[in-house]
Parts: sequence; C-alpha cells; structure tokens
Amino acid sequence: MMNPVVVVHGGSGRYTEDRKEVCLLEVRNAALEGYRLIQQGGSALDAVEEASVILENHPLFNAGCGSVLNECGETELDAIIMDGKTLGTGAVSAVRNIANPTKLARLVMEQTKHVMLTDRGASRFAKTMGFPEVPMESLVTERARERWRRNLQPGSNPVELQIELGTIGAVALDSDGNVACATSTGGLTNKMVGRVGDTPCIGGGGYADNQSGAVSTTGNGEAIMKVTLARLIVFHMEQGMSPAEATDTGLQYMWTRLQSHGGAIAINNAGDWTAKFTSENMAWAAVTGDMLFYGIALGDVRTSGIEDIPQ
Amino acid sequence: MMNPVVVVHGGSGRYTEDRKEVCLLEVRNAALEGYRLIQQGGSALDAVEEASVILENHPLFNAGCGSVLNECGETELDAIIMDGKTLGTGAVSAVRNIANPTKLARLVMEQTKHVMLTDRGASRFAKTMGFPEVPMESLVTERARERWRRNLQPGSNPVELQIELGTIGAVALDSDGNVACATSTGGLTNKMVGRVGDTPCIGGGGYADNQSGAVSTTGNGEAIMKVTLARLIVFHMEQGMSPAEATDTGLQYMWTRLQSHGGAIAINNAGDWTAKFTSENMAWAAVTGDMLFYGIALGDVRTSGIEDIPQ
Repeated sequence: MMNPVVVVHGGSGRYTEDRKEVCLLEVRNAALEGYRLIQQGGSALDAVEEASVILENHPLFNAGCGSVLNECGETELDAIIMDGKTLGTGAVSAVRNIANPTKLARLVMEQTKHVMLTDRGASRFAKTMGFPEVPMESLVTERARERWRRNLQPGSNPVELQIELGTIGAVALDSDGNVACATSTGGLTNKMVGRVGDTPCIGGGGYADNQSGAVSTTGNGEAIMKVTLARLIVFHMEQGMSPAEATDTGLQYMWTRLQSHGGAIAINNAGDWTAKFTSENMAWAAVTGDMLFYGIALGDVRTSGIEDIPQ
Repeated sequence: MMNPVVVVHGGSGRYTEDRKEVCLLEVRNAALEGYRLIQQGGSALDAVEEASVILENHPLFNAGCGSVLNECGETELDAIIMDGKTLGTGAVSAVRNIANPTKLARLVMEQTKHVMLTDRGASRFAKTMGFPEVPMESLVTERARERWRRNLQPGSNPVELQIELGTIGAVALDSDGNVACATSTGGLTNKMVGRVGDTPCIGGGGYADNQSGAVSTTGNGEAIMKVTLARLIVFHMEQGMSPAEATDTGLQYMWTRLQSHGGAIAINNAGDWTAKFTSENMAWAAVTGDMLFYGIALGDVRTSGIEDIPQ
C-alpha cells in the first residue's frame, strides 16, 4: 500500500494581494478534499477530478466559473484528465455552457473510444450523456467581464492583464500506486474564438503514467505546447530525476528556449512530489500523511496538520 | 550548406492491391515537388506544406479531399505544421469546408499569436483571412461515403474498415539546416462529431526542432496521443539515437504498451532519415541528393534517380 499524495495548483502568474489568501485557502481545501476521497477508498483519478471541480466552481480561478472571456466575450473552456494506470485520457477543448469541463473530460475517457472532443462535438456528446449544460452568463464573473472590456481599449496590454491569471490542476497518487492528473482552464483572456491551448493536449497541460509519475502545468499555453512541458518533465523523471529536479529542468528549458515563465506540480510513483514555478506566484497545496504543505511565492512553504483544517 | 532531404508518407495500415502503385506514385510526386521547392530556394516549411497539399488534393488519401466521414457523414479535418527553427506551430482541428487544412494551419502559425484553432473558431479565422472555403461535398469521395454506409450496418467492423486508411505527412531538412514537419488527416471513419486525434496535437502527430530533428506520425490517433509518439521519437534522437533507431524504439514502445500499430517518418539535423511502420503497409518516399527512395511494405526499398521521374 502506498501513502497517498494529492497536489493542487491554482495557476502560475502574479496574484494581487487581495487574492492571495483566499486562493491559498481554496487550493488547500481542494487538496484536502481530494485526499479525503482517497482515504475513503477513491482512486487518484477521483481525487484529481474532485480537486479540479472544487476550483472550477470557485469564481476566483480561471477555470469553470470565473474563466476569462474570448474576443467575443464568451467562455470557451479546455480540460484534460489522464489515468496513469492505462494512459487512458479524456479531454475537451473550446467547450461552451459547461461548468465542469473536467467531469465532461472524464466522461469522454470512460464513455467513448476517443480522447478529445471539441466545440460542437463536445456539446453534442454532453447532450447525449445528459450532462448538465448551463447558461454562459453563469460562468462569467464581473471581474472577467471587466478584464475583457479593458483589453478592448486602445493601448491595453493583454499580457499585463493576463499575468495574474492561471489554469488550475491536480496530480495524485493513491493507495494502489496509481497516479493521475487533471488540468482545467478558461485559457487566455481575449483569445481568438476557437483558440485551444496546452491544457487539453496530452503532454502539454498534463501527463500521467504509473511507470513514472504525473504532472499538471500552467503558464503561457502556446509556449507549454511547443516544449510539450508535461511530457518533458515526465521524461526527466523516467531518466531518474526527482519530481523537483525534473520540474526545475523542464521549466528552465522553457525559459531558455522561449523566454516563457510557468509552473507545474509533479509526483512520482514513489510519492515524492513538488510544486515549482518561474513566475512570481503560484498558489499550491499538497497533502500526504497527516500533513498539509502550501505556498504562493518562491521559498514560501508553510505546513500544518490536516486536523487543524476545518472540514 | 546542408544537403536537403524530404520524406513523405501516405499513411500506415493495409493498402489494397489496386491502391498500392497509385499511392506510391503520389507520395513520390509529393516528395519530389517538396524537394524541388527547396532546390528553388524554398524552406523546409515550404517543402512540407507543398508535399502535404499535394496529398490532401489527391482523393486516394485520408486528408483533404478523400477524407473519411464522421458519424454524421461529414468531413472534419485535423492538421499541423511545425517549424523546427523557432518551434513555431500552427494547427487546426475538426475544421470543415477547408480543402487544405495544412495551409490554414500555416496561417494560424504566421498570422495569430496562437497555435491551435478549432471548429467554429478555425472557420471564423479562415473567413477573416479570405481563405477559400469549399462545399463539404467537394471533399467527399464515393469511396468514403461507401465506407461510412457500411460502418452504419449492424455487425460492421469499423476497425477492419479503418485499417487501410491513413494520415499523410512530410518532414524536411533544407539547405540552411532547418527542419519542419506537417501532418494532415480526416481522422477515423465514423468518428464522433468533434473527435480530435493526434494529428493537430504537438508531440502527437508531429514535432520539429532544429536541435534534433523532425517527425510525422500515422496510425491509431488515440494510441499515438497517449504515448506522445512524435515527441517520444524526437527525445530518442536527442539522446543520440539515429532516426531509424529512435523511430523503431518509439513504435515498439507503442506496440508493447498499447498493442497499437503505426508508422512514422523522421529526419535528424544531419540529414539522416527513416520511414518505419509496424503495420502491414505505409506508402513512403524520400528524396536527397539526386536519388529517390520509396516503398510500401516491410523490406521494400526501391530507388531511382530523380531524373528518371517525369516532372
């Protein structure tokens, strides 16, 4: 029996002061809920789905409700979930009217012979499965709308406006030694209609393989895709690096090659884990044994006992 | 100055006897045209685009005109193009009414800040760029329609019907030492609406990096995605394997791990090249120096001088 581990991130970038503590609270909560699910007999896959859904449902994160808007003021969401036991994967891209794309991605994995469904086909599949569709307005926060408006103004700096926003994700190892990952995002603010980023692409936004470990990434999607960041980090683990070394090496490569910052969480199949970022911030939390670890800035690693956190 | 190389494939699987020679003729033609473009001063990127467009336009290949149909009898095409010099990439997924998705993918790379556009967003972009849209019927061959109909019958075997169909792709090295890849497909016959396979996913259907080489893959898209086959082969090249060793190793891994056959073409930045497959057939052709190499079955490697082929 392995000691379970759950690690969660709330996106790399720069967090404004007013968001830091509430984001940290939510990623801790998501990691704890995922962990409790494993303690109750759930799988790594259940844990990463649960953690992702909690963050998708929280309006402060750029995933599910709270997602940024595309050039037309709409939400188009991307998500992936991957099972390290079978390499089974489900993903949805540019999906509309779905509050929890991670859940829909899991259905793609379990109920179809395919890996990725996009846009109209993903909606069609959701309807067939009786998966709940929601009005787009229910996913749009005033904060996302305001950011979109500012970006439409002449002289706006989309990169600057983007910088505090990030994808959410989770990785887990369960008692049976299975690893899994999930990643979910609203993408880039004011993105073109139909733009798909790294998140739903296997090896970009996530990768999970019981033979090595699992990774969820966050940052500039286009750069992450070009270096296949999640697969790159897993390759480094396959060659004997620890999750921390592998993630540092992968992020450093992306910076050297493309001058792009980002972050990632990783675990290996022995239960070693890491949360690393080259951006200013990334809210993250990890639970293993009876300890909770969390942080949001470089060198910021806080700990507490699980029992100290109210359920 | 490097000696240019262009390698082209017409898909892995099983080719019926009546298709073998005409497919071989077309991949030879595509490889030669790509090569001539480089000889006239074109880049590796120009060569892989040209070779892909030639095969997209030929109704015998599962790309562009001749693509298989989805469950609703429609064509939805995927394509990618990648520039090894910058890692710049363009991709389109589940795109309709486009005869040459590789050309549209190149526009995504060169005219947007994004990498992948999907479905409605890809169509919207095509309209904005004045890119030609075509009636879907112009892409549908009687052969594709017949296959789709047979698959709808009770007791049909979609895997058996799929087996002779494949993606098309090209890799090239130009005189400046730049590598590039392109891959284009109609996907799986009778696929679900919105199904996206490996082709447009960086590291799945293709990968190109001047620091190592370029790869284009073909086979079961879901399996290729799960092992990130193109990126895997490039990783092996990065670690010192020849294109042939790296491709054999990658294909063998996919077979061992997922019992899935496939094929790939690969070149490295020194001009070594390969065309490998674990399926029964893959039509391929390679041009370098004044020689043309081609084949369609295991151990079948034929050669001729370029001058022997009519322009």
